[in-house]
Amino acid sequence: MRLLVVNANTSEIVTEKVAAQARASASPGTEVVAVTGRFGARVIGTRAEHAIGEHSTVALVAEHAGACDAVVIAVSYDTGLRAARELLNVPVVGMTEAGLLTACMLGGRIGVVTFGRRVRPLYEELVTAYGLAARIAGWRTLESTAAYQRGAHDALDNELVEVARDLVERDSAETVLLTGAVMAGVPTRLQARVPVPLIDGLDCAVRQAELLARLGKPKPSIGSYAAPAPRELIAVDTAIARALGSPTA
Amino acid sequence: MRLLVVNANTSEIVTEKVAAQARASASPGTEVVAVTGRFGARVIGTRAEHAIGEHSTVALVAEHAGACDAVVIAVSYDTGLRAARELLNVPVVGMTEAGLLTACMLGGRIGVVTFGRRVRPLYEELVTAYGLAARIAGWRTLESTAAYQRGAHDALDNELVEVARDLVERDSAETVLLTGAVMAGVPTRLQARVPVPLIDGLDCAVRQAELLARLGKPKPSIGSYAAPAPRELIAVDTAIARALGSPTA
Amino acid sequence: MRLLVVNANTSEIVTEKVAAQARASASPGTEVVAVTGRFGARVIGTRAEHAIGEHSTVALVAEHAGACDAVVIAVSYDTGLRAARELLNVPVVGMTEAGLLTACMLGGRIGVVTFGRRVRPLYEELVTAYGLAARIAGWRTLESTAAYQRGAHDALDNELVEVARDLVERDSAETVLLTGAVMAGVPTRLQARVPVPLIDGLDCAVRQAELLARLGKPKPSIGSYAAPAPRELIAVDTAIARALGSPTA
Amino acid sequence: MRLLVVNANTSEIVTEKVAAQARASASPGTEVVAVTGRFGARVIGTRAEHAIGEHSTVALVAEHAGACDAVVIAVSYDTGLRAARELLNVPVVGMTEAGLLTACMLGGRIGVVTFGRRVRPLYEELVTAYGLAARIAGWRTLESTAAYQRGAHDALDNELVEVARDLVERDSAETVLLTGAVMAGVPTRLQARVPVPLIDGLDCAVRQAELLARLGKPKPSIGSYAAPAPRELIAVDTAIARALGSPTA
Amino acid sequence: MRLLVVNANTSEIVTEKVAAQARASASPGTEVVAVTGRFGARVIGTRAEHAIGEHSTVALVAEHAGACDAVVIAVSYDTGLRAARELLNVPVVGMTEAGLLTACMLGGRIGVVTFGRRVRPLYEELVTAYGLAARIAGWRTLESTAAYQRGAHDALDNELVEVARDLVERDSAETVLLTGAVMAGVPTRLQARVPVPLIDGLDCAVRQAELLARLGKPKPSIGSYAAPAPRELIAVDTAIARALGSPTA
Amino acid sequence: MRLLVVNANTSEIVTEKVAAQARASASPGTEVVAVTGRFGARVIGTRAEHAIGEHSTVALVAEHAGACDAVVIAVSYDTGLRAARELLNVPVVGMTEAGLLTACMLGGRIGVVTFGRRVRPLYEELVTAYGLAARIAGWRTLESTAAYQRGAHDALDNELVEVARDLVERDSAETVLLTGAVMAGVPTRLQARVPVPLIDGLDCAVRQAELLARLGKPKPSIGSYAAPAPRELIAVDTAIARALGSPTA
Repeated sequence: MRLLVVNANTSEIVTEKVAAQARASASPGTEVVAVTGRFGARVIGTRAEHAIGEHSTVALVAEHAGACDAVVIAVSYDTGLRAARELLNVPVVGMTEAGLLTACMLGGRIGVVTFGRRVRPLYEELVTAYGLAARIAGWRTLESTAAYQRGAHDALDNELVEVARDLVERDSAETVLLTGAVMAGVPTRLQARVPVPLIDGLDCAVRQAELLARLGKPKPSIGSYAAPAPRELIAVDTAIARALGSPTA
Repeated sequence: MRLLVVNANTSEIVTEKVAAQARASASPGTEVVAVTGRFGARVIGTRAEHAIGEHSTVALVAEHAGACDAVVIAVSYDTGLRAARELLNVPVVGMTEAGLLTACMLGGRIGVVTFGRRVRPLYEELVTAYGLAARIAGWRTLESTAAYQRGAHDALDNELVEVARDLVERDSAETVLLTGAVMAGVPTRLQARVPVPLIDGLDCAVRQAELLARLGKPKPSIGSYAAPAPRELIAVDTAIARALGSPTA
Repeated sequence: MRLLVVNANTSEIVTEKVAAQARASASPGTEVVAVTGRFGARVIGTRAEHAIGEHSTVALVAEHAGACDAVVIAVSYDTGLRAARELLNVPVVGMTEAGLLTACMLGGRIGVVTFGRRVRPLYEELVTAYGLAARIAGWRTLESTAAYQRGAHDALDNELVEVARDLVERDSAETVLLTGAVMAGVPTRLQARVPVPLIDGLDCAVRQAELLARLGKPKPSIGSYAAPAPRELIAVDTAIARALGSPTA
Repeated sequence: MRLLVVNANTSEIVTEKVAAQARASASPGTEVVAVTGRFGARVIGTRAEHAIGEHSTVALVAEHAGACDAVVIAVSYDTGLRAARELLNVPVVGMTEAGLLTACMLGGRIGVVTFGRRVRPLYEELVTAYGLAARIAGWRTLESTAAYQRGAHDALDNELVEVARDLVERDSAETVLLTGAVMAGVPTRLQARVPVPLIDGLDCAVRQAELLARLGKPKPSIGSYAAPAPRELIAVDTAIARALGSPTA
Repeated sequence: MRLLVVNANTSEIVTEKVAAQARASASPGTEVVAVTGRFGARVIGTRAEHAIGEHSTVALVAEHAGACDAVVIAVSYDTGLRAARELLNVPVVGMTEAGLLTACMLGGRIGVVTFGRRVRPLYEELVTAYGLAARIAGWRTLESTAAYQRGAHDALDNELVEVARDLVERDSAETVLLTGAVMAGVPTRLQARVPVPLIDGLDCAVRQAELLARLGKPKPSIGSYAAPAPRELIAVDTAIARALGSPTA
Repeated sequence: MRLLVVNANTSEIVTEKVAAQARASASPGTEVVAVTGRFGARVIGTRAEHAIGEHSTVALVAEHAGACDAVVIAVSYDTGLRAARELLNVPVVGMTEAGLLTACMLGGRIGVVTFGRRVRPLYEELVTAYGLAARIAGWRTLESTAAYQRGAHDALDNELVEVARDLVERDSAETVLLTGAVMAGVPTRLQARVPVPLIDGLDCAVRQAELLARLGKPKPSIGSYAAPAPRELIAVDTAIARALGSPTA
């Protein structure tokens, strides 16, 4: 199986990181192809950048998904998820969506840890969009940016463990999701210090994408995820135009 | 007051139509400036096109909002609304959001009419995103595309009146929202034939944008709508880069 | 335009205060007519007083709304809102309803500040009634009664700023609504000390009432807000009897 | 035990009917005292009349509840329920509230039958106010006014049975509530023709009021149902003024 | 009236305790018959034990409910409630369900006190199952096991009073439910120290069971609570087989 | 990997059917071990039988799960799911839960088809319990029992296709879940005739169980899914007693 990991951030270094983690999560026979956004934010962290990233995701999957069996959106706002799901004939999974839904199958309510007060509402909006508000035990927000720096992050690790435990203690969380593509791999490292499952969205997304690819459901032919009839667009990537059957292609 | 009407569709003809309706809705002293998307779909009607439109909206407001006092998103999926609201120092209102919230102030539950089974889920997702699901009485979907053609549309008019009445009769709707930028102006024409207020999202959005501009609330300095600190982006419009303080600008 | 501001409290001093604030919020051409309850509580602060105030509001609007273009309910429990909306041919807006819905258009979730633990449930019930529970970030309650006294209220101001900031800090509120007619004008004075928009329900209600009057939607002819067919009542104000077409009029 | 049945309608004939039904529902040792509104609508059927009825209920309970052990609100919009509950030291139960909550204990979701499209939203608002929306299987509305006329109502009976069965058949209702004080007694008569329990709100309210009286919970001393500290009101009934400790009493 | 109190715990001592409390709650003419589980946990405190208890409850009611007029489930997870309600021709009430619904009729939102972090999610799940999440003001969890020991529990009493007051103070709870069969009788003892009604689920359940028995609603003949047509089971109690009409009986 | 498929029905024929389907869904290296209930209903179809099945599931997993890596609950009411999840150190997945959550990742709202009006409320209760009500587009119920008979079921197939299409057409469902263990395999057969993905709960559950086993999250040590401290039970299976550390083992 060939799995496309889409990083709408324009930072190869982030792509390399998520690609490495995705390879660690993937089944033996799965080839991971990771692509990086060609325009937009180095690291998506604002609503405007997320909006640009929606387009970027469409461009990336239009160009690269052709030979792939499934796609993982490796930006934790699930940037471009619904658009890519509509456009492609193969399954597309977002890392936060997959983290949340997989956590549901471990049982109980989910504590969510986000980085930065600025983006917490975006995660709340994702939860609302997925209809999962009733499954959330509580929220904690860290302001640290250490995760984006190289080297060990003992202080950040301690802070993460502390808020995860607090979600368990005070809000009765039965699993804890660490959001953020940059957190990929961290839950595994810190798991031993937290009394409930620590969920890694990317890890879940890679596995769920493989699962859906093997499940082999057909593309719907009606509704909002059906393949669009030929459309007319201007000034877009050749790949996008072709994918949407635009005469400008 | 100067009001920017943003049409992320790349069809000048749609822009002209919404601009005319916006001028009809605006206060005497308000100048309406309408801009058209420079890339993307002629008429946004798929999730992929909506995703591209999110970026397009950011580009349009980054370039044109500078001298304006408020902005109206004139695509009925409220494409790019949250991003524009974050980016700008002036109020931004979406036409479907404004239609729904204004309808709330008329009292009771809202019936919603959408065009095309394909896009109805997008409107359901907007309602969910705005936390207004409990205010919806029911949904009706028409498949007609007559609205995009010139001339009178008696058959479509009749169909619209019929489904609006049916929402009142069977679902106890106390107002009815006709979605779609192309519907701008139609509610006024058909109002006499429907027993409850027929809501025109664009009409509401223009008026709400003026209201918010006069209300004069400051830009938040914290949270997801605060002005971002300088960001780093690549390969984006000069206007976007400048708006986000990117060194590449 | 002529705007009726209805104060079901039987305190002229409160009426004068809200009338002054309403005039400050109204458009240049708008005449504000403010009326005071003729029976009931000096300051509505209990459920029983609110119930009496419901009747009082009906009496006030039946007598005074005739020559007006829109009505604002200037009691922050939106006392009598739905009844007045049914009875009149012109738009009626409640100050808390308008504050909440206007805040929605500024984006994100709303923190709510109430005065007195006793009445906080009434505001929670309003939010539930409007279907807006999902839009609330959190609640804070102050017990101070200083607002009802003349002069500067530095201690209260400080307390208000503190709880507003706390709603932003801990609950990720992106706007904050100060409830209470007595708070009219305060948000403007304290805005500079709070990092997100501070919402003034009366200010919003006046502007929304003007907006709805100009929007010009017709009275529904079906449903719970349609004009009632002639009714039979006894021992009520002549104005109420007339408004409801009662033979006892 | 002495049970006060409050009919805020100003029709003695309705009072007599509900009093008779209340006596049929009450325990052997319970004395039913029924009182009729002294002002307002003959039969509350509009929002304005409901608002007046809120005041009327306060006046009635302030005057008559003194020697009673519990109170039943015998208007099916539960008019004045929350106000009376605050004001009195004894339990107060609304007939629709009691019907809904009792139905919950029979299991499953509830079908609701209302009379008149005009008032259905008021019942929907009650359900929302009680937080019970998730327990409703569906709604049916009849336009018949036969129930207010004397004699047998075979056609209406048939219609009621038909919609009740339809709620069971199509919406999987497991109980059906017939709203409306005028329906008191009807569920018992029609029960044999409907395959699930037909709920009579008044019947439930009388029994729940007795239950709560015997349960003997104290009046809260904090919160929105605590007895108010002395208040100041003008131009209200002596009984109301006394109940609220107003100096004008 | 004959009331069956079902204790699926296999501890006679718990049965004696709840039977005594049930007798204290029951009407003068009511005979309380209390039965103890014959298999399963001494005190149900895990999900697996609750699952076994579901079966145990079915066995107990199949054997003992025949001569009874109503049934109370005296395990506070309402273990086996829905199954017993389906199986029997008489009303069945769970103690937590009855506590919650009765609290609703006292007005406002309910604070809930649970024993043990381990089981709090089970109570949250009950609230969700009953559709009552919107009626909950907040949760508090105590870890004390003193309640299961004989003698006075001053420390526990103090702790209970403290968390109940805190629910009132910080979460605006207007009633407080003490969960747990072992808490039966405690609310009455501590009521004077808490400013809002302290609810005792068992007390409510006994009274509601009597009420429903007197209400006399028929068994539904359609739906999930109708009597099952003859079923085929193996290796179950004779009483269960007989109740389900199994040929193996 | 070794996967335990638990059929709490006491029908080996059903076990054989689900085992065959489970093997078809499992990865090449996965060994499927299927076990059949030793007591209770031949085919669980009532609430009482479901309650007995809860116990039966606990008995089956206590005895058989030891050497397994994950467990699938192959009764479509997810009978015993939460109890088994608590008891075991390996992941446990219910077929309806897995079907719903997997469908979420295909996008949009889910139509649900159930067999028998009697059990539809049980599925509605599952959806509520999982917090997924907002993801449901609509429900359809068939009364056919043909699925339990051998041979081709053309009439049933046609009926299934018809209701699935109707869910798409009228309720905008974007996936359709066929509930019922007996439906295992049917979605694949009928997929070509339905325009959106037809979901097979068992198929999803087997794959999700494998996924969770490979994900390797640890057993929580706190909360409702932690391993219980030694408990005391009587008259239960040796395996159950041992699993719960009961001294009676």
